[in-house]
Amino acid sequence: MRSLILPAGAFRALAHHISDFTADYLEKLPNLPSYPPGVSGQQTQALFTGDLPLEGIGAAAFADLERVFNYARPSSPRFFGYVFGSGEPISALGDFAAGVLNQNATAWRSAPAGVTIERTVVRWLAEAIGCAGFSGSLTLGGSSANLMALCMAREAKAPANQSGVRGGVIYCSAEAHMSIAKAAALLGLGHDSVRKIAVDEAFRMRTKDLRAAIERDLREGKQPIAIVGSAGTTATGSIDPLDEVADLCAEFGLWMHVDGAYGALAALAIPDAFRGMNRADSLSLDPHKWLYQPAGVGCLLYRNPADAQRAFSHTGDYARSLTNDPIEGFAIFEESMELSRPFRALKLWMSLRYFGLRAFQHSIAEDLELAQVLARAIDAEPHLERLAPVALSAVCFRFKDSNGDLDVLNQAILQRVTQRGRVYLSNAVIHSQFVLRACIVNHRTTEDDVREIVAEVLAAAGEVQA
Amino acid sequence: MRSLILPAGAFRALAHHISDFTADYLEKLPNLPSYPPGVSGQQTQALFTGDLPLEGIGAAAFADLERVFNYARPSSPRFFGYVFGSGEPISALGDFAAGVLNQNATAWRSAPAGVTIERTVVRWLAEAIGCAGFSGSLTLGGSSANLMALCMAREAKAPANQSGVRGGVIYCSAEAHMSIAKAAALLGLGHDSVRKIAVDEAFRMRTKDLRAAIERDLREGKQPIAIVGSAGTTATGSIDPLDEVADLCAEFGLWMHVDGAYGALAALAIPDAFRGMNRADSLSLDPHKWLYQPAGVGCLLYRNPADAQRAFSHTGDYARSLTNDPIEGFAIFEESMELSRPFRALKLWMSLRYFGLRAFQHSIAEDLELAQVLARAIDAEPHLERLAPVALSAVCFRFKDSNGDLDVLNQAILQRVTQRGRVYLSNAVIHSQFVLRACIVNHRTTEDDVREIVAEVLAAAGEVQA
Repeated sequence: MRSLILPAGAFRALAHHISDFTADYLEKLPNLPSYPPGVSGQQTQALFTGDLPLEGIGAAAFADLERVFNYARPSSPRFFGYVFGSGEPISALGDFAAGVLNQNATAWRSAPAGVTIERTVVRWLAEAIGCAGFSGSLTLGGSSANLMALCMAREAKAPANQSGVRGGVIYCSAEAHMSIAKAAALLGLGHDSVRKIAVDEAFRMRTKDLRAAIERDLREGKQPIAIVGSAGTTATGSIDPLDEVADLCAEFGLWMHVDGAYGALAALAIPDAFRGMNRADSLSLDPHKWLYQPAGVGCLLYRNPADAQRAFSHTGDYARSLTNDPIEGFAIFEESMELSRPFRALKLWMSLRYFGLRAFQHSIAEDLELAQVLARAIDAEPHLERLAPVALSAVCFRFKDSNGDLDVLNQAILQRVTQRGRVYLSNAVIHSQFVLRACIVNHRTTEDDVREIVAEVLAAAGEVQA
Repeated sequence: MRSLILPAGAFRALAHHISDFTADYLEKLPNLPSYPPGVSGQQTQALFTGDLPLEGIGAAAFADLERVFNYARPSSPRFFGYVFGSGEPISALGDFAAGVLNQNATAWRSAPAGVTIERTVVRWLAEAIGCAGFSGSLTLGGSSANLMALCMAREAKAPANQSGVRGGVIYCSAEAHMSIAKAAALLGLGHDSVRKIAVDEAFRMRTKDLRAAIERDLREGKQPIAIVGSAGTTATGSIDPLDEVADLCAEFGLWMHVDGAYGALAALAIPDAFRGMNRADSLSLDPHKWLYQPAGVGCLLYRNPADAQRAFSHTGDYARSLTNDPIEGFAIFEESMELSRPFRALKLWMSLRYFGLRAFQHSIAEDLELAQVLARAIDAEPHLERLAPVALSAVCFRFKDSNGDLDVLNQAILQRVTQRGRVYLSNAVIHSQFVLRACIVNHRTTEDDVREIVAEVLAAAGEVQA
């Protein structure tokens, strides 16, 4: 018997144990604090930094899960931080099955069911947001999808795979996600190659400024590559004028990428807000955001698989396929920067089929409506002010009733809100001002939960001013 | 009640159902075929490409898991393809718990326990392979770890993040993994910037040729950046002379990266074979290979976190931390190309503590010994010939007893072996010849399983020649 083989029955017993443990946890979840009370770095260091275990402790390793869960940020109905999905638990069961099955979902021959299901799920996602006909693959998240998209854009417009980069310019709005500049740096184009175009009063890219920037670069002999339109900026959820972006891409022969990591899935509920999105060459969306999947599943869609192959096909001999069959010979790694990759599609496949798309549509519509409820509650409260329109589900506001430095005060309020543990907010900068930010991409949130945001901020403000 | 909220008790019942389903599967696993019998692309298309489900089917979605499992490649004790771990199931339970917990393991504040455990597990891995003091992070796999390492190398030796790439050369052996050239392309250096140095009779990089290539580039005004030493080449498991690579890096001021995706973890069992590895600036290793974890967990180690920060720190306002505490302010995304990322460390934490490091050490030693058993069995069989020394656990061989084209014959044999479904092999090219390749990184494999390889290849050869 080999050293890592479990005794008969051990897996079954432990799986049932974790089933009850996680089910108990999910039952408690709505009433848990939105952040572990009093957690500190010293405390987590003391609890989770033991020595390398030479000898096993067997099932005792499972007893410690309690502590891990107690010092984790819960997927509370009152979590409104960043843009992060709420972890629909059917998906977690899909991940459990995928872990046991242990597929390398990199090519049909390595995972016949897995790769077929991934292609199906990607097709479903494309159809769901009005981009029928697009193909693509699941990714780690939005940052890697954006990186891959810009790599495809570079290879299409200013090829560098063979001989290296010789310049190229990328356009996005000043509100675009930091992953765009990070991708430009990684791809060897450099931060200096990113033109951050000014936004209008609703935080949408000004296309007049965009046109002027492209024309200036052309006059200076630079090589424009791509325009990135945001379908849901991180701070305010604004949607760039995608139809105008598409027109400019057509006019100047540029690649159109839509960063829809936050917002694109809202096209399930409000498709009209995303007009022009389906004219993109590539598009990122994040099932682990607004499809409520557990962390670790983004998606890149593209119009033409040949663009992905041009960017990513570098097959070594040991991985070469022996078949010419278009299905059996299909390898995702020829269209992706990923090689070994888990069977991420299973959780989506389970979750979408269990609930049906309409339930997701309905949930996204509820999130959108809850954001409007919050906006109205803030507008009705004289101590607070809202600093941006609410295009999707991110609401930016601050406590304004003070003669002191509002940035300092609101930072203190945010820390106090987190410590109080009732709601979890994050922050943003709007017009150079520090603001509180609530983002609702949470299938558990109710109207009561949202109304607590105002109450908690006022209570925290009272405490820090006392 | 919101549309994606499960009825009371539903999660618990389904979790117990999957527990039994997966436990039953794992009990059958040793006796399953090593590849789904008769599976075809047409068949998987018919089974797994339905229409986008508008209405949910509830628990019926779980009944279909049976089909998904039946058309997946099992993690059989007789799977010897590529370099792919065997999926230790305690890890799968860790992934299950992580999915329910749904942490964004990107910064301490988003996942206090999760990020602390990841840093601990990374430290354990470094210690286990003789690189105590290195830090790093978990990655999707070896390809992304290699990409991040070369991005760090580029930024350290020929900075490009700000102003773009202005050239730079990377050295590796002709046997290096395809992800090195793919990374050079993605980073904007280009394939032309990769010098593939010839190997010796044991498929190790010839350091004399390496020195000559560096000197030639310097004479021509090129900018050498990094040398990549392979700690386990994909085809033959050869280990480059890492001490000599380190000497050359020191002499010429180059970055030393070790691609240990396949082999580095074998340092648990045979540390002497990896002398010089701990002199690297960065090092990739893959727990989902030789630590038997389910797909989706690699690791990048590095000597100096400042190198990672220089390459990857581009924080946007919305993600900026409000604390100066070194633990609570720690953000993995400042040292990684990843932003949102799952709590991958939990499976490793569970698995390492359940079994203890010694059990892994022992299992790796058993794999190494089984490869020698296979090599001896091939050498003793007159119809077969072995084409490379066995440094780790990859064995390259072919059927040689024919007057026909041996490449064509061995391709037919490989396809027939897969169809027979008893063992799963993959292929490689050695000295321009097509060879069969068995790689043993499998905690379930026994000596009987390995002996079947020879029997199956001979049986398949008989069938294709008949």
